[in-house]
Amino acid sequence: MKKIVTIGGGTGHYALLRGLKNYDVDLTAIVSVFDDGGSTGKLRTEFGMLAPGDIRNCLVALSHEADIMELAALFEYRYDESLESHNLGNLILKALQDIKGDMAGAIKAAAKILRIKGRVLPVSVDPSHLRARTDSGRLLRSQVEVSYPDHPDGKERITEVWLEPKAHIHGASAMAVREADLIVICPGCLYGSVVPNFLVAGMAEALKKSAARKAYVCNLVTKQGTYGFAVKDFVREIARFSGVQPDAVIFNTLRPSQDVVDKYNSEVSGFVEPDISGLEDGVARGAELLKEHDLGGKRVVRHDPERLARMVMDLL
Amino acid sequence: MKKIVTIGGGTGHYALLRGLKNYDVDLTAIVSVFDDGGSTGKLRTEFGMLAPGDIRNCLVALSHEADIMELAALFEYRYDESLESHNLGNLILKALQDIKGDMAGAIKAAAKILRIKGRVLPVSVDPSHLRARTDSGRLLRSQVEVSYPDHPDGKERITEVWLEPKAHIHGASAMAVREADLIVICPGCLYGSVVPNFLVAGMAEALKKSAARKAYVCNLVTKQGTYGFAVKDFVREIARFSGVQPDAVIFNTLRPSQDVVDKYNSEVSGFVEPDISGLEDGVARGAELLKEHDLGGKRVVRHDPERLARMVMDLL
Repeated sequence: MKKIVTIGGGTGHYALLRGLKNYDVDLTAIVSVFDDGGSTGKLRTEFGMLAPGDIRNCLVALSHEADIMELAALFEYRYDESLESHNLGNLILKALQDIKGDMAGAIKAAAKILRIKGRVLPVSVDPSHLRARTDSGRLLRSQVEVSYPDHPDGKERITEVWLEPKAHIHGASAMAVREADLIVICPGCLYGSVVPNFLVAGMAEALKKSAARKAYVCNLVTKQGTYGFAVKDFVREIARFSGVQPDAVIFNTLRPSQDVVDKYNSEVSGFVEPDISGLEDGVARGAELLKEHDLGGKRVVRHDPERLARMVMDLL
Repeated sequence: MKKIVTIGGGTGHYALLRGLKNYDVDLTAIVSVFDDGGSTGKLRTEFGMLAPGDIRNCLVALSHEADIMELAALFEYRYDESLESHNLGNLILKALQDIKGDMAGAIKAAAKILRIKGRVLPVSVDPSHLRARTDSGRLLRSQVEVSYPDHPDGKERITEVWLEPKAHIHGASAMAVREADLIVICPGCLYGSVVPNFLVAGMAEALKKSAARKAYVCNLVTKQGTYGFAVKDFVREIARFSGVQPDAVIFNTLRPSQDVVDKYNSEVSGFVEPDISGLEDGVARGAELLKEHDLGGKRVVRHDPERLARMVMDLL
C-alpha cells in the first residue's frame, strides 16, 4: 500500500484527511503541536502538555465508522465558561496522556478508541513556543500572535519564525517522512501552523533523505502575515522554511462570490491569486477546489475534501 | 432470555453487575440520581443535570469488551484540582446530555460507546434533592449529609427520608420493573443510595404490579446512620421504604480479619451481624461473600462479584 504523509495544522489539513481516508492508502498525518490559544492554550499552561487541538482534529477527521459518530461528536464538544470553554477531546487527550504516560501513547490510545484510518503523529514531543519577527521589527511571542499579528493596517509581513526552546522531530514522524511515497504539505495558517513543522530540528534532514514525491497544497485565502500573497509567494515561503522545492503545487482557481470576497477583505484577508510565475513546467496543478460554506451564519471558504484528495491521489 | 433488574447505587451494585454481565440474561440497572457530592455535585450545581456518578459507574461495570478497556479507564479518570477534580466520565455524560438533549439519551449514547451488556436507567429524570431527619431531630439537607450524618458519636439513627421536590419514576424504569423476572435490591449506602430509589413516586406501585421474584442483597458493613444494624434491620428498612418483603435475602457470613474490623470500627463502622431473626423460612441465603481488598493502601471489604452473581442467578 502506498504511503502518504501529510504535514500541516488547521482546517485545510483536516479537509484533505477527510478526503484521503476513503482511499486504499497508508496515511500518516504529522501535526504541529505549538498552538497556544483557547482550550489548548489553557491545558498547555496548566499542565505543560503538548498542544492537543490539531491532534484532536486530525483524529476526528480520520475516524471512520458510522457507529462511532457519537464518539467523534464528543471529541469535538466544547463546554461553556463554567468549564473554562474546554474542548472535551482535549480533556480526553489530557487524561490519556496521564494514563499512558506521554502524548505519543495518548494519541495511539485515542486513535484506537476512534478507530481511525491511518495514524496521527506529533511533529515533536518537545513542548516549545512559537516566536516570530515582523518586517517592522515587532516580536510576536506566541502561536496566537504569529497567526494574528494584529497590526493596525493588517499588512505587516512576517520575516522570521523560530521555536523557543529548540524542539526535535519525533522519531516516528522522521521515519514516516523518510519512508513515504508521497508527502503533502497542507494548507493552513502559514507561519502559525504549517511552517512550525519545518522549524523542528531534524525535519529538513528527514525531508531531504526521503525519496517521496513532494506536493504542496496552497491556501485559498490570505490573512494577516500573508497579506497580498499569491500562490508563488506561498510556494517561496514553503521552500524557504522546508528546503523543499515541491514536485507539485496544487492550487485553487475558483474565485469566491463577491460578497464572500468583500467579507474577507473587511478582515484584511483576500483571495489567493493563482499567480504561478516562477514555477517549473509541470509543477503547477490548478483546479476549482474552493467551496463556500455557511459556518454558524458566517460565510467561509474551504477546500473541497473529495476533489483535493483525488488530485493528491493522482500524484501517486 | 430472563430479565433481571437491579436497583441500587454504590459499589455493591457495581460488583453485582460486573458478575452478572457474564451470564446469558437481559440486564437492566436502575440507579439513583440524587447524589450531590464531589464532581457529581459540582455538575449538578453548575448545570442542573442529574447526578452522573452512579450512572457512570454502572456503565463501566457493564462495559464488556477487552478492546475498550481504555475507554472504560477514561470514564473512570479523575482530574486534579486545576480541573476541579472532575471525573472524565461525568464530563462525557454532561457533553452527551447537551448533544442528545436529555440524560436518558446521554446514557443510551454512552452505553453504545462503551458497548455495554444490558441497560442503565435513571430511576427518575427529575432533578431532586435528598432530605432526612435523625432520631435527635436533625435535618440532613443533601445526599452527602444523609450518607455521612457526621454526628459526634456517629450512632444517630435516620428516621425519615424524602425527596424535595417530588420526583417521578422514569417511564423505562417503571416498565423494566413491571416486566422483570427477578428484581435485585443491591447493597449500598442504605439511606443515601438505595432507599432514594423507593422514594420516587410510582416505584412502589411498579414493584407491587411486578410478578418478579424480589431479592435483597444486604450490606457487608454498617456506617453512620445504620450503626449497629444486623441483617434483619436492613431488611426491615428496605421493606418499610419499598413496600417489598423480599422473597430472598442474600447476606454475608464471613467475618473480616480483625485488623479490618478495628479499622472500620475506628470510623464508626462495623461488620453486619448475620442475625436473620424474623425472616420467613426459606428466605435467608447466607454465604461467604466478603472479600478484602487493598484500595490505595487502605483495606476495604467488598462483595465477591462472581459468588454474588451466581447466588443471584440461582434465584431465577
